[in-house]
Amino acid sequence: MDESGPYLIRPIGVVHSMLRERGDAPNQAFEGAPEAVLEIDPVFADALHRVEPGDELIVLTWLHLADRGVLQVYPRYDESIPLTGVFRTRSSHRPNPIGVHRVAVTAREGATTLRVGALEAVDGTPILDLKVAMNEPGE
Amino acid sequence: MDESGPYLIRPIGVVHSMLRERGDAPNQAFEGAPEAVLEIDPVFADALHRVEPGDELIVLTWLHLADRGVLQVYPRYDESIPLTGVFRTRSSHRPNPIGVHRVAVTAREGATTLRVGALEAVDGTPILDLKVAMNEPGE
Repeated sequence: MDESGPYLIRPIGVVHSMLRERGDAPNQAFEGAPEAVLEIDPVFADALHRVEPGDELIVLTWLHLADRGVLQVYPRYDESIPLTGVFRTRSSHRPNPIGVHRVAVTAREGATTLRVGALEAVDGTPILDLKVAMNEPGE
Repeated sequence: MDESGPYLIRPIGVVHSMLRERGDAPNQAFEGAPEAVLEIDPVFADALHRVEPGDELIVLTWLHLADRGVLQVYPRYDESIPLTGVFRTRSSHRPNPIGVHRVAVTAREGATTLRVGALEAVDGTPILDLKVAMNEPGE
């Protein structure tokens, strides 16, 4: 492989949430995750220009509690499902534990704070990137 | 912020594609991207267990040609759209240039090579992660 890295990623912000521990977090947002606040580092304020309530965004997070050495899991902790490679699951345990979440922006609070709908990430989860979701206008 | 990183990510594989330069790559897969091959590092073979043709996967890539210092762009290079923060676009230029792509697995070729449908990533793009797309069975 030509582009072998490694690459250095610095979080652009952090998730604030009522979810305090991983056991509290549902596997999928639609299973009842609470609203959350995305606090973005002020040095990236310009990168939030035109983000508005109603936008649907993809949030990439660093799943900092994950075990990067795990290659197989029982999906959703269900041992009736065969042991499965992590690349065929959404387990947080994986070599590069990057979470992909879709959220709706409900409010902007100041220059670099976004209030969003249901998000299944624990309090303190680092944010790596935001991007507009597919099929949104203006992308 | 508590979890300030930085974090080290090592690619798990590489994209092989007919797309040789960024100018060749469409902005979205449905605009005519070619099929591609995902070559995964053999050390992660176990993490591909149960990946099969027909699976819909999310591929996370490292957009190695991106400019990490860009905070605002004209979306889709269209100057009739106002200058927009990169977090409200899908531009490859952004502080942590991680690409999010949805692909269909069309074939497995050996233990660690996947043939996939349309993928808008240039040849040699590093792969960071694979996960099953939302709403897939068995996740």
